Amino acid sequence: MQQYRAPVKDFQFVLHDVMQVSEAQIPGYSDLEREFTEAVLDAAGALASDVLAPLNMTGDVEGCRLENGVVRTPAGFKDAFEQLKEGGWPGLSLPEQYGGQELPHALSIAVAETFTSANTSLIVYQGLTGGAISAILAHGSDAQKDKYVPKMASCEWTGTMNLTEAHCGTDLGLMRTKAEPQDDGSFKITGQKIFISAGEHDMSDNIIHLVLAKIPGGPEGVKGISLFIVPKFMVNEDGSLGDRNAVAVGKVEEKMGIHGNATCVMNYDGATGYLLGQEHKGMRAMFTMMNEARLGAAAQGVASGEAAYQNAVIYAKERLQGRAVTGTENPEGPADPLIVHPDIRRNLMEQKSFIEGARAALVWGALLVDQSHRNEDKDADGLLSLMTPVFKGFFTDKGFDAAIQAQQIFGGHGYIEETGMSQYARDARIAQIYEGANGVQALDLVGRKMPSDGGKHMMAFFELIKSFCAENSEEEMAGFTGPLKAASKDLQSAGMFFMQQGMKNPNHALAGSYDFMHMFGYVVLGLMWAKMAKAAQVALAAGNTDTDYLEAKIATGRFFMQRQLPLTGALLARIQSGADPVMALSADQF
Amino acid sequence: MQQYRAPVKDFQFVLHDVMQVSEAQIPGYSDLEREFTEAVLDAAGALASDVLAPLNMTGDVEGCRLENGVVRTPAGFKDAFEQLKEGGWPGLSLPEQYGGQELPHALSIAVAETFTSANTSLIVYQGLTGGAISAILAHGSDAQKDKYVPKMASCEWTGTMNLTEAHCGTDLGLMRTKAEPQDDGSFKITGQKIFISAGEHDMSDNIIHLVLAKIPGGPEGVKGISLFIVPKFMVNEDGSLGDRNAVAVGKVEEKMGIHGNATCVMNYDGATGYLLGQEHKGMRAMFTMMNEARLGAAAQGVASGEAAYQNAVIYAKERLQGRAVTGTENPEGPADPLIVHPDIRRNLMEQKSFIEGARAALVWGALLVDQSHRNEDKDADGLLSLMTPVFKGFFTDKGFDAAIQAQQIFGGHGYIEETGMSQYARDARIAQIYEGANGVQALDLVGRKMPSDGGKHMMAFFELIKSFCAENSEEEMAGFTGPLKAASKDLQSAGMFFMQQGMKNPNHALAGSYDFMHMFGYVVLGLMWAKMAKAAQVALAAGNTDTDYLEAKIATGRFFMQRQLPLTGALLARIQSGADPVMALSADQF
Repeated sequence: MQQYRAPVKDFQFVLHDVMQVSEAQIPGYSDLEREFTEAVLDAAGALASDVLAPLNMTGDVEGCRLENGVVRTPAGFKDAFEQLKEGGWPGLSLPEQYGGQELPHALSIAVAETFTSANTSLIVYQGLTGGAISAILAHGSDAQKDKYVPKMASCEWTGTMNLTEAHCGTDLGLMRTKAEPQDDGSFKITGQKIFISAGEHDMSDNIIHLVLAKIPGGPEGVKGISLFIVPKFMVNEDGSLGDRNAVAVGKVEEKMGIHGNATCVMNYDGATGYLLGQEHKGMRAMFTMMNEARLGAAAQGVASGEAAYQNAVIYAKERLQGRAVTGTENPEGPADPLIVHPDIRRNLMEQKSFIEGARAALVWGALLVDQSHRNEDKDADGLLSLMTPVFKGFFTDKGFDAAIQAQQIFGGHGYIEETGMSQYARDARIAQIYEGANGVQALDLVGRKMPSDGGKHMMAFFELIKSFCAENSEEEMAGFTGPLKAASKDLQSAGMFFMQQGMKNPNHALAGSYDFMHMFGYVVLGLMWAKMAKAAQVALAAGNTDTDYLEAKIATGRFFMQRQLPLTGALLARIQSGADPVMALSADQF
Repeated sequence: MQQYRAPVKDFQFVLHDVMQVSEAQIPGYSDLEREFTEAVLDAAGALASDVLAPLNMTGDVEGCRLENGVVRTPAGFKDAFEQLKEGGWPGLSLPEQYGGQELPHALSIAVAETFTSANTSLIVYQGLTGGAISAILAHGSDAQKDKYVPKMASCEWTGTMNLTEAHCGTDLGLMRTKAEPQDDGSFKITGQKIFISAGEHDMSDNIIHLVLAKIPGGPEGVKGISLFIVPKFMVNEDGSLGDRNAVAVGKVEEKMGIHGNATCVMNYDGATGYLLGQEHKGMRAMFTMMNEARLGAAAQGVASGEAAYQNAVIYAKERLQGRAVTGTENPEGPADPLIVHPDIRRNLMEQKSFIEGARAALVWGALLVDQSHRNEDKDADGLLSLMTPVFKGFFTDKGFDAAIQAQQIFGGHGYIEETGMSQYARDARIAQIYEGANGVQALDLVGRKMPSDGGKHMMAFFELIKSFCAENSEEEMAGFTGPLKAASKDLQSAGMFFMQQGMKNPNHALAGSYDFMHMFGYVVLGLMWAKMAKAAQVALAAGNTDTDYLEAKIATGRFFMQRQLPLTGALLARIQSGADPVMALSADQF
């Protein structure tokens, strides 16, 4: 019953009208002409609609089964994954040197959103491989890159990230997995890792596990953690596969959602591993993976919201129930469609204004990735690293909310599994939890990213808003720049409060960190909506005849400015109440 | 892994310190001494913890199975239901005349919260029976009451509500089920009803279906709907069971949650039914059930939140992860417990301040039920009818949010089914949808309840706040009465906006109805927290030595006033933006 069509027109608008990618001074961007990106996005959309989406619900029902040490993915997953590989999609933005197509992230993020909307469980097998490749490219030796990356870029081999143990998730300093040095320079890895997405499955010839472990005798806590490459099958010198390594799946978890993705307990029993990067510098290497994974999770928030929203719109137009209070709109029918009702509109507009705003922000984030990598632009990198927890935390929270709201449109039909609306919500829920739970994102934002480099990147963000508003001071934009300035001021006031009060007691900052992350998210979306409204106005003035689309864009932006952005005021009031109300109780008083 | 203990101390505080029930001038209330209510609540708590809660997760996993027309409930459900019956719990607040104990609703609502926290799926079998009994008592003939109510009061027979059809949920005017008059005064009911909770199961000897249907030739739309009693087994004159009636279950739905409750498609194939109340007045009779069911759904919101919250608190105290930023609090351990972290506190305090505030409101609502029934107090009835959509909509939304927040505390462990946190969220979700989806509650509030009787009941609510603030003008209460007055003013401004703008275009009111429902909920909880703070201050001044509990109550109230209540300002801004941003798009522009 689920339906999905890639929002190609919206991607095109963001890429070309808003971000003007083909004119950006970034290597490779000049290739991103309208016709080219459209062709890529259409092809991705066809694969998503025709191959991935039809397996979404069946994958949910069937789930993954562990049989004699082998994990069976749901029927059809392997074939679909083969089609993904054959299309070259996994290597879309990877270096040509390793078999990729080296296309900008600004384009590949749109493809990622598309595939994730269609089938989150299936695409996670690919997504984590991308994170593992990034870590190998950033920290591996040339020999390691040559050995692993080409096969991973094609997803012939997939990758995993092994961080969590039963007793430690966020606090990796408590880790117990050991890596004992061997005479040949390799290590023997022993320990148990949990919640390993795609830890074991039947869709690739080999699985390259990246595993955090401690080398005995190293420093205590996180400073003694190193990162290792642990292949499922040993890789011979000629690239062929050798013996099975001493790593095995112990269990496949029963979860709330993403049933088609195998979440595994992995047992390392003296498995052979190879140091990736430097000894005891594993956390740094791990963050290379994590940052990419966090942007991926952020995209998942938007993707889940989009898929659920599309179905809600279809239902709201088809389902006849009640009459418009302002006069019948469907006189021939027994009732008017749901979409005539103001509260249904409010619900849909909340989803739409979030999704489209966040989509633009994701493309902007991907542009910062490209600017950082291709231009070695440290400012872009700093801004990206500031945005990463905001995107991850806010987009996954709001993406889940959107899926819940879309489910609500269906009434009781949304609660039964038959319509697939429950699945969107259940699948979306994980993105708030994995790749660093959202509370940890808020801590990262306030405790690390905001103050880093003397607050330089925060300043740069405010400067973006200031200059946009200065450059667009005409009357037509006042409905956008006015609310944006006000919200930006609230965000600045919150930052000021943290600086001043956090000196006295860091809890004054930490108690407001979550509200700050959301506030920041609203301001980012405010900026995106102002940019999109401007771009739509420019297009209309230039004679673009797709007025329905462009005027809808402006109207949706107005909705966001008037109905969503004012929340920053309430969040500021919360933040300014400081830590006292939050920390007043002793643990026993709960 | 789920744990639950009834919050008896908190119920006692609300009943006695806040509401002073034993002194209320309502028949039967003088029996509600502290010792008596504690004994009842302890007994309910024991049944909840020992019998109902242990079946919650197993019921979720096992679900209900349809086998040859018979629905098998999960293992243990039948035995547990027998214990519920043996304890006389279903008849707690029913008239003595029909075998009940006729205890006030103020007490039975606490018992309902307790049982629902422990096992939502199981208690729904009883809860709907209560709604059906209310409808029979309000609209049935004496013969009907005598025939059905005693067996239903003991849950030997259970009840159902049959409203929804595949093509009509909210819009019952579209109904197709027919009731054809027979010579003996009975009717032949033919049609299909869907989403019938407890429609068929193996835990009672008979099932009394209350079914909405249209008598041919009657008025169009909702004015032609009548309500019928349709027993599963015919009931002979002597009360013994006769032939099977022509009603059968067609399907048991696969749902997101409450798997232990059988949600059925029911097929009526010329089934014998008896008119309940007057012809064509079925909607009125149905609302008797619905209002009770809505308060039950509101209680479910609180109950789900409470159960999830209790587990989150236990986990936050036990799980060691990271160190307090203000200095280690568990120097002997490898890390500090989660509960030292400010964002974990924020999360827990948001849950706690909602749950305890809403619990007090529910008891107040139950007191209004008693005042209305036992004192025939029309003002209490009016106030209750105003509060019903607020409680149903706001408490179920926030109860679901609380369950999601509790799940978040567990990180990845919350997403796997093993901890039971996913179940709390999945089960809580239904309460936002059934008994009138929350958008319909908002419409009911703004379109019907608020303006009814010339706005008299709205005025009465504002008067309650005004007089409370006037009576408690001392400095110690300023931190409560100040924010309460401000929030109440916001609510008044919103009401004023609706009155003024709604005249011009009703959409100006309807577009803000959902925000208004939430705003109203915050104000109700603000009033409850002010009352609870006052009661705690009085108890402390009187020498009550349970200072930890009482001071926690005051501190939690302060949290609510400073961190939650200010949201009314943002909601007002939304509402005052009117219908234009919400209704700007044509249906095709979505």
